[in-house]
Amino acid sequence: MNERELIQNLMRDLPSNEQVVVGAGDDCAVVDLGLASDWVLFKIDATIEGVHFTSDAAPEAVGHKALGRCLSDVAAMAGTPSCAVIALGLPHSFDPAYVQAIYQGMRRLADRYHVALVGGETSLSPERITLTVSLIGTVSKDRCVRRTGAQPGDALFVTGELGGSILGKHLSFEPRLAQANWLRAHYDIHAMIDVSDGLATDLRHLMEASGLGAELLAKNIPVSQAARRKAKGNAGAALQAALNDGEDFELLFAVKATDCVTLKDAWAQAFPELNLRCIGKMISDPGLKLRTQDTLREWTQHGYDHFA
Amino acid sequence: MNERELIQNLMRDLPSNEQVVVGAGDDCAVVDLGLASDWVLFKIDATIEGVHFTSDAAPEAVGHKALGRCLSDVAAMAGTPSCAVIALGLPHSFDPAYVQAIYQGMRRLADRYHVALVGGETSLSPERITLTVSLIGTVSKDRCVRRTGAQPGDALFVTGELGGSILGKHLSFEPRLAQANWLRAHYDIHAMIDVSDGLATDLRHLMEASGLGAELLAKNIPVSQAARRKAKGNAGAALQAALNDGEDFELLFAVKATDCVTLKDAWAQAFPELNLRCIGKMISDPGLKLRTQDTLREWTQHGYDHFA
Repeated sequence: MNERELIQNLMRDLPSNEQVVVGAGDDCAVVDLGLASDWVLFKIDATIEGVHFTSDAAPEAVGHKALGRCLSDVAAMAGTPSCAVIALGLPHSFDPAYVQAIYQGMRRLADRYHVALVGGETSLSPERITLTVSLIGTVSKDRCVRRTGAQPGDALFVTGELGGSILGKHLSFEPRLAQANWLRAHYDIHAMIDVSDGLATDLRHLMEASGLGAELLAKNIPVSQAARRKAKGNAGAALQAALNDGEDFELLFAVKATDCVTLKDAWAQAFPELNLRCIGKMISDPGLKLRTQDTLREWTQHGYDHFA
Repeated sequence: MNERELIQNLMRDLPSNEQVVVGAGDDCAVVDLGLASDWVLFKIDATIEGVHFTSDAAPEAVGHKALGRCLSDVAAMAGTPSCAVIALGLPHSFDPAYVQAIYQGMRRLADRYHVALVGGETSLSPERITLTVSLIGTVSKDRCVRRTGAQPGDALFVTGELGGSILGKHLSFEPRLAQANWLRAHYDIHAMIDVSDGLATDLRHLMEASGLGAELLAKNIPVSQAARRKAKGNAGAALQAALNDGEDFELLFAVKATDCVTLKDAWAQAFPELNLRCIGKMISDPGLKLRTQDTLREWTQHGYDHFA
């Protein structure tokens, strides 16, 4: 049984109650606690030494990543983060200065987005430093964007550049909270997800949730400099990295095709320093297709699987 | 630097915002998201193989404990749990049936308290199974019980029996949600905490939060059968276990001394099968004192410290 099958199995028929709007299977859980116009978003993410960061990573960057991953998920639902709690796992002999620097990285990011750090707990984790962050936020009920609402013919957009995140961006990415909220305020975003498992894998999540297929235009996929560097000049390998590498933490979303031109123009005004690229469209036929100059083929490769 | 000093250091001047009612340092964080009469409770707890459970533990019990620890903290603030998310860490080769049984244990407990499990994530944890659970709940603003409100002269009560939890109860305890809500509905509970680090240590938390000391009556401390078994008939060692052992997950609370008799009577009607014991009182003098038949002495021993 692989990770995906296990999770599918575990997530089947989970206990629910009348407060659950969206349970497992979107970027965040969505809960109705009785607020007049808002729902509550709820998320957890573990960041583990040797898995999500190496022991030589700058501790501030580790803290940044641990909190940033949750913030990126709140962004994907066009929400606003509120508070986070942290479960910290430490080996018997730890360097207090290193741990404090991890917290410094979290504090800095929390400050930037007005997120409160409201506590947590510390326990022994003999082999590895682990940081598990849980975040709550809010989203206006009429602005919550899920993975489920894409329509056939919708244009697919992605922010930033993709691939090769392992060379550095996975520790220094900026969660796209401002962009997501701007998008939702000005456009009818049908579906959105953050690109954390790799473009192809996350697009499949969005396709499955919306019951659709998608077609990507290879030449439009924004291949990052890091992906090119990693591919050592091999254009095919660089494209592959942009499609399959994880931890880009960019936004992937579907919007009415007729909104494309105005969206591109308005975006360039609002976020002149961040690329926004139309990379393809949603289609009724199932499956993910990649269109190159002269071929249209199925893209069957998957992104990172912890247990592959 | 020990665990306590590190945490104190990390928790200093954490980023806050206008939604925070209680940040780090109580059983749960308390957040005001704008609900008319309720606050939101927010908690995280990690349950780690080899630290919080041994590899031969029944997986259902492991799941029970992972969720139950958070429920116990919500109980300590007289709140009602709502939803939980779970970060699951698994080694490369895991037994899917074992993991599913862990989830079965969580599901069963969640069902009992009408708690929804709204997702989470799975990642690689090479050496150990880890389960980090985060829980949100609600509490009526006029019923939230903190650690801070104890008054000199208050009677101290504890539910159940204490000590020797390692012999089994740490995996099978029942979170005292019903009892905590009943207590708060009928009495003016000044301060409450769940006994997770050991009676002496958790009482010190409550004393520090309330700026007081406390005096315990040795003969009134409810020493569990497990503590006696562990102590092999040595009464002093059994008492010591009841004072210092962790993971009892009982409620420790302070209430006006004049409420003692009616509380004991009403409790016996409401919860005939669960012991409630008055074990001492809050005093103005700082420090924790233990009164035995002929002596009154400082109790300086501490409970479990992960990094001691």
